[in-house]
Amino acid sequence: MYPYQLIEEIRKQNPLIHNITNIVVANDSANGLLAIGASPFMSSAPEEMEEVAALASATVLNTGTLSAEQLEAMRLVGKRANELGKPVVIDPVGVGATTFRKREIGRLLTEINPTLIRGNAGEIAALADIEWQSKGVDAGKGSADLVMAAEITAKKYQTIVSVSGETDIVTDGTTTYFVDNGTPFFTAMTGAGCLLSCVCGAFLAADATKSLEAVVVANCSYAIAGEVAAADLNGLSVGSFRTNLLDILSQIDSKRMKQDAKIRRKAK
Amino acid sequence: MYPYQLIEEIRKQNPLIHNITNIVVANDSANGLLAIGASPFMSSAPEEMEEVAALASATVLNTGTLSAEQLEAMRLVGKRANELGKPVVIDPVGVGATTFRKREIGRLLTEINPTLIRGNAGEIAALADIEWQSKGVDAGKGSADLVMAAEITAKKYQTIVSVSGETDIVTDGTTTYFVDNGTPFFTAMTGAGCLLSCVCGAFLAADATKSLEAVVVANCSYAIAGEVAAADLNGLSVGSFRTNLLDILSQIDSKRMKQDAKIRRKAK
Amino acid sequence: MYPYQLIEEIRKQNPLIHNITNIVVANDSANGLLAIGASPFMSSAPEEMEEVAALASATVLNTGTLSAEQLEAMRLVGKRANELGKPVVIDPVGVGATTFRKREIGRLLTEINPTLIRGNAGEIAALADIEWQSKGVDAGKGSADLVMAAEITAKKYQTIVSVSGETDIVTDGTTTYFVDNGTPFFTAMTGAGCLLSCVCGAFLAADATKSLEAVVVANCSYAIAGEVAAADLNGLSVGSFRTNLLDILSQIDSKRMKQDAKIRRKAK
Repeated sequence: MYPYQLIEEIRKQNPLIHNITNIVVANDSANGLLAIGASPFMSSAPEEMEEVAALASATVLNTGTLSAEQLEAMRLVGKRANELGKPVVIDPVGVGATTFRKREIGRLLTEINPTLIRGNAGEIAALADIEWQSKGVDAGKGSADLVMAAEITAKKYQTIVSVSGETDIVTDGTTTYFVDNGTPFFTAMTGAGCLLSCVCGAFLAADATKSLEAVVVANCSYAIAGEVAAADLNGLSVGSFRTNLLDILSQIDSKRMKQDAKIRRKAK
Repeated sequence: MYPYQLIEEIRKQNPLIHNITNIVVANDSANGLLAIGASPFMSSAPEEMEEVAALASATVLNTGTLSAEQLEAMRLVGKRANELGKPVVIDPVGVGATTFRKREIGRLLTEINPTLIRGNAGEIAALADIEWQSKGVDAGKGSADLVMAAEITAKKYQTIVSVSGETDIVTDGTTTYFVDNGTPFFTAMTGAGCLLSCVCGAFLAADATKSLEAVVVANCSYAIAGEVAAADLNGLSVGSFRTNLLDILSQIDSKRMKQDAKIRRKAK
Repeated sequence: MYPYQLIEEIRKQNPLIHNITNIVVANDSANGLLAIGASPFMSSAPEEMEEVAALASATVLNTGTLSAEQLEAMRLVGKRANELGKPVVIDPVGVGATTFRKREIGRLLTEINPTLIRGNAGEIAALADIEWQSKGVDAGKGSADLVMAAEITAKKYQTIVSVSGETDIVTDGTTTYFVDNGTPFFTAMTGAGCLLSCVCGAFLAADATKSLEAVVVANCSYAIAGEVAAADLNGLSVGSFRTNLLDILSQIDSKRMKQDAKIRRKAK
């Protein structure tokens, strides 16, 4: 039913995933991409962005340590990837935190057509212009508002939107899925969401149709890897979780996903 | 006696700690802050510095890979944090190494009033304008000169100064404490001192009075976490120490600190 | 026969190794240098490059996330290191990937005289202007073309060239060595090659003659550390390999190298 076999597709195709990202997560993002079978490429030199867009099978733009220089590179690579029909993932880190981020990321979203916007509850709420309490955010199962925020954002930018939390939400504005897999350890590891954006980029690169379901399966594979990594801790904690997560990402396959996946489709 | 309970305060308040830092340690610094219960925010875009100063509960400025752009951001965020009465920690990495660093960090210290300057022996000696042999530095217990250097620097900049070494020195120029906890493994892990600066930022953020003793306890909690992480190695070495350290930082509490703390106050 | 004792020399001299590197590998490179007994220094501020060249015992220039600003710093530090007779290692990451990298790295190589160029098969082929299929690269033992590419590049730039792969090639254009040690796990860890470049910098710094054999031994020590780290995995994978590698690098010595080295010299 769901395209779980995309993980084997990634290992077969070894897609080059280009990232403009931040100094905090660059290493984990690269290692995580290698672990699932993709090839990371990090560059934000404006001089090579158009060529890189052509070389890469997908581009992931992360605003974690956004600067004016990065914005220029993001524009160049995003526009070219759009022309070439290649997937573009935008991870609007901290979009609601400052006026600078809100203005510049908003502008970027009018100049580039993302294939996917992936963020946490606060970020998607900010993009949907919905009131949201950043402190004490709980993206729990009953939160109708957060689902609405995701659907509004998807329609507004004509894109897939994915919200990470206890339950992940994946929607194109019309069809909406929920992924109930995961572990609270993701919130204890910096860049866990940023790496998920990279993983989504790899799944979209491996899926000829760039389907909503590819993003659902990307979220699910990552969440299951987290579950397994957390189960292996034997009383250890966050430092070890990160090491385990990379180990498990390199081993996860469609068989495991079929067995453990907790995916629901929202009733219309 | 000492405010050990600040570690529980950090976990309760979950303070946002803003960092301008370097590409080497950004990831460990963010994960370490998460481990003790704080929330890391890394940004050096001048466009958002004043807003970030207001959002954050403390700001940590690290000169490990100092650039002209970072200096501009440091000035903006530091001045605004001063106006708002929020703690500012300066980690003057390599201040004695080059003319550029000495000049620019010196200038920064005339424009910003730090709450704490934290560095190693060579860095504090450079700030105190004391002759110091960088090779073969030994900050051992008997080194009267190093204590003097810390006290001179504290008076010169009217701030708390903390020197890391086999024995940590924490002083406001008048009252001086020594922390005898620690492990040589800290010197084998890049960014161990940088992360301590972040930890100090979190303790200062959680302490309404921004007291000298908050910094003493911050040093002590980090040093004890290092002791426990080193004791757990079972013959393994530096790579595993770093993983263990993050694990232990997420588990350390005031009970453990009370039990293991080796804090001395200098006789007047 | 081979100067294996250079590893003990590094631990004795504790040479300062300056790096201009990328945001992906900076942390692992610094920790790896500490593990073998060297002292890492990362900076790319043009304002301090000439002074840093004088302070450092070797300089390693890595083009992984090349920018116009970094190029300026690379020129300054490289030229000064040349004047001072200090080793300069160039790791031309991605030189064949884009026009920008090919042009700028080519230009850099006309302005600086490197002591060593270290890269993977695709990078050295690009420098030698040899046709090379980046997909499915196999630097296997029988590949006469790759050896030729290394020798051509060494002659062209009058430097040592080292190509990493299943078999490492080290040549000055006249004498050529092969190192058969290693593990496939290196290809699963981002920045494994970048760290090897840093290790080569440390070995060249410790060797008064900056000999070809110092680079051979550097490659060999790193490859053996990888073998040991991979053997210790007990079913674990890439995340644990990286942790193990740092552990083993801190323990490797000339005795172990003599015992495990698989070095061959090419017949003339």
